[in-house]
Amino acid sequence: MVKVGVFGANGRVGQLVIDDLKKTDDISLSSVFVREKLNFSIDPSILVSTNVKSFLKACDIVIDFSLPKACETLLEAAIETPTPLVIGTTGLSMHQLNLIKQASESMPVLYATNMSLGVALLNKLVHQASAALEGFDIEIVEMHHKHKKDAPSGTALTLGESAATARGLDLNNVRISGRDGNIGERTKDEISVMALRGGDIVGRHTVGFYNDGEFIELNHTATSRNTFSKGAIRAASWLVGKEIGLYSISDCLEL
Amino acid sequence: MVKVGVFGANGRVGQLVIDDLKKTDDISLSSVFVREKLNFSIDPSILVSTNVKSFLKACDIVIDFSLPKACETLLEAAIETPTPLVIGTTGLSMHQLNLIKQASESMPVLYATNMSLGVALLNKLVHQASAALEGFDIEIVEMHHKHKKDAPSGTALTLGESAATARGLDLNNVRISGRDGNIGERTKDEISVMALRGGDIVGRHTVGFYNDGEFIELNHTATSRNTFSKGAIRAASWLVGKEIGLYSISDCLEL
Amino acid sequence: MVKVGVFGANGRVGQLVIDDLKKTDDISLSSVFVREKLNFSIDPSILVSTNVKSFLKACDIVIDFSLPKACETLLEAAIETPTPLVIGTTGLSMHQLNLIKQASESMPVLYATNMSLGVALLNKLVHQASAALEGFDIEIVEMHHKHKKDAPSGTALTLGESAATARGLDLNNVRISGRDGNIGERTKDEISVMALRGGDIVGRHTVGFYNDGEFIELNHTATSRNTFSKGAIRAASWLVGKEIGLYSISDCLEL
Amino acid sequence: MVKVGVFGANGRVGQLVIDDLKKTDDISLSSVFVREKLNFSIDPSILVSTNVKSFLKACDIVIDFSLPKACETLLEAAIETPTPLVIGTTGLSMHQLNLIKQASESMPVLYATNMSLGVALLNKLVHQASAALEGFDIEIVEMHHKHKKDAPSGTALTLGESAATARGLDLNNVRISGRDGNIGERTKDEISVMALRGGDIVGRHTVGFYNDGEFIELNHTATSRNTFSKGAIRAASWLVGKEIGLYSISDCLEL
Repeated sequence: MVKVGVFGANGRVGQLVIDDLKKTDDISLSSVFVREKLNFSIDPSILVSTNVKSFLKACDIVIDFSLPKACETLLEAAIETPTPLVIGTTGLSMHQLNLIKQASESMPVLYATNMSLGVALLNKLVHQASAALEGFDIEIVEMHHKHKKDAPSGTALTLGESAATARGLDLNNVRISGRDGNIGERTKDEISVMALRGGDIVGRHTVGFYNDGEFIELNHTATSRNTFSKGAIRAASWLVGKEIGLYSISDCLEL
Repeated sequence: MVKVGVFGANGRVGQLVIDDLKKTDDISLSSVFVREKLNFSIDPSILVSTNVKSFLKACDIVIDFSLPKACETLLEAAIETPTPLVIGTTGLSMHQLNLIKQASESMPVLYATNMSLGVALLNKLVHQASAALEGFDIEIVEMHHKHKKDAPSGTALTLGESAATARGLDLNNVRISGRDGNIGERTKDEISVMALRGGDIVGRHTVGFYNDGEFIELNHTATSRNTFSKGAIRAASWLVGKEIGLYSISDCLEL
Repeated sequence: MVKVGVFGANGRVGQLVIDDLKKTDDISLSSVFVREKLNFSIDPSILVSTNVKSFLKACDIVIDFSLPKACETLLEAAIETPTPLVIGTTGLSMHQLNLIKQASESMPVLYATNMSLGVALLNKLVHQASAALEGFDIEIVEMHHKHKKDAPSGTALTLGESAATARGLDLNNVRISGRDGNIGERTKDEISVMALRGGDIVGRHTVGFYNDGEFIELNHTATSRNTFSKGAIRAASWLVGKEIGLYSISDCLEL
Repeated sequence: MVKVGVFGANGRVGQLVIDDLKKTDDISLSSVFVREKLNFSIDPSILVSTNVKSFLKACDIVIDFSLPKACETLLEAAIETPTPLVIGTTGLSMHQLNLIKQASESMPVLYATNMSLGVALLNKLVHQASAALEGFDIEIVEMHHKHKKDAPSGTALTLGESAATARGLDLNNVRISGRDGNIGERTKDEISVMALRGGDIVGRHTVGFYNDGEFIELNHTATSRNTFSKGAIRAASWLVGKEIGLYSISDCLEL
């Protein structure tokens, strides 16, 4: 049985990880790290710790969904006490990203800003489709809830990059975010990334490839935030026993 | 049997009307008007004429898909020899639009820039949905082939107006055609009309209404240009025997 | 301020109603009825009662998502102490449905097995589209999570009935639930209602109308069960002050 | 410049191939084979022949969309005068399929019942997704025009096989073509292949993978029959100069 430590246990995704670990077979929760106290009750057999070292000793692998500063503390401690890490914290600074690289020289580390298995797969499929369907026009549409403040989503940009690099293009040079007026015929290389906003949509991404006579549309829809916790748990199961190094979520798809 | 005259018989839609009239039961082709000569062969029982008056005498109703100047000639002749008209010519000037109004004082005239029955219905449904689902966010996406030079499509703008006026809004004040950067949360009234371009898509329009917990998406897709000829023929069947006046395509839906 | 009593407060939808009432302006929670005790903590200003009469006295209108037997108790008490009722309990017996009718002779009662506003609207739109697009082929696809045991969904059947009755058809005579083998060309009147199952889909219904040259697809997607609690709250706001009688969810759309 | 011979020039797809070859750069029409006479006019520089041997001599590669018996004649002649072949004729007998194998021992032969590049790619993507998303539920929906007599489509079955074999399953054991009544929870391995019929839909296939928290839907839509002629032309360009052997349409994608 693999013992998992959850770092950032009070966070929204951290709590989902703890919940989802109750339903798994060969991997289970052994310890949680919190800065002060846990905001909810938990099985008394689980170690609740405010000390990173004790926390690390009680587990075989860590799943982290915290904040950049807290993640930094984790990385520094893990470098001294090597423990495999699954890092899902976003918004890391260059220094913190370098700490991840450094950590990955003494233990297996998987880092991903979107833990969804489906999105990782979609990225691979989009890359292939873009290369194989060379003359097809590419259009990307993403939709998120009305509270999202930036556009387009990071995931949509990553999908756009997958599509662009498969054709030797730089997304920055070919990306379009809207069309209005007498814009003339579509140019061959342009890739639109259109952002819709409304309701409580968790996340929906469609990458379309259009040609005379046919088109292909590849869609991913997140129906709940659980997709991130489930992705992290699967990544953790996969990472245990791997060689030292830095991994991404798509590595654990093993296509 | 209603006798139909086709004005603009050499045009792309005019030819489709002639073809589609071969498959109808209670309405059939009796005469075609061309400026010089017909570019294809036709049943010898059909009158092919370059004289508008002879052309008009040989039919009970006219279907017109021509060019603005030709349409003007038709309207002037019809005002003298009242004959019901179905006008599908686009790009008319103010003077020509006034001629339509004038003609509609002596005969029934149906004028529409999109003869598709489905689009006319969609407009009605969008208006109702927008009013009934008051707090829902509205997003519109249209897609057309890569050769289309303007954006968004006239049909998408009409749909946007249906949605906006149902809430007492002016589309010009609330329309958005793209989202990029740190734009902040979606505002309550904004309506995006996003234009996708690619391949040979004849025309696809989706109007979405999004709320916490649920959303509705109403879609219309044209699979061939025949939808315009079929719409015109149905409109012609409906218009025969109607009172003098000006009609739109949605009148003949009789919801 | 309208005072709402929630009957069936410990149930899954009942709890959502209580949560959602915290976010409303002109309507708020005043009392809850439970058989024994409330399973969660609540603002002390709210009356928690195991006595139906006291419960009814403390509110202007009741929202009920309970079980058939409990709903029966509510109806019997309400007949003696008339209070407007919004009933969302499903699986009622003939006797209980008769009690609803009886109750609606002394107070306004709204009864619906699906409180979603969107679904109610979709039913209206489907009815109109089916009538207006007379020659179009109708196909319905619904999708729900993998745990759903019956097929097709009650909502899909209701949508099918809306479509069929608009054409003078009986859904029972024209419904198809699958196609396999050399089945020959599609018949004009048949309506397929196809059921997909998978993942955790809350509920997705699409009604399509297909013709040569164009098609229309009307879709409703539930993204969370909140859609039922929100629908009930809107129904309650609307029902207050209405005349005595029996209402359905579509009445409160006021199309 | 590669010289193409079109076998079955009077057929619907054969004519499209001839049309589409007018728009290509490095490959062009040199000869057509017809049983009696060509039903349309053609550039006088093209050899129109009723003799297979003369026809074969005038081209570098053959594109065949004919009938089984005619295709057999072609194969017998090509075995004597080796010429690369792209075979798109459907409904071949076991004997005729064996002739294809025999021919592929003396020249490169590409045989495919669906020449669409997009469908070939979709098959690859579905296979990968099915393997990578192991616990996801698979549902397939296809839609075709109302005149199609068999269900589900051959392409849908091929997609189902791609999905099934990626998980070590036999589609025949797990395929479902409809759901009706109290069928209980979805079983883990079942794959539904649902067939919709209506209007003039050329062909639309969606393969969905559904899990708790997320789903992926991969869609291919044919917008005109040209997709088959274009696919055959691309296959021919690719096949020229290849080694002797039997190839499929997915080989020429070179993923």
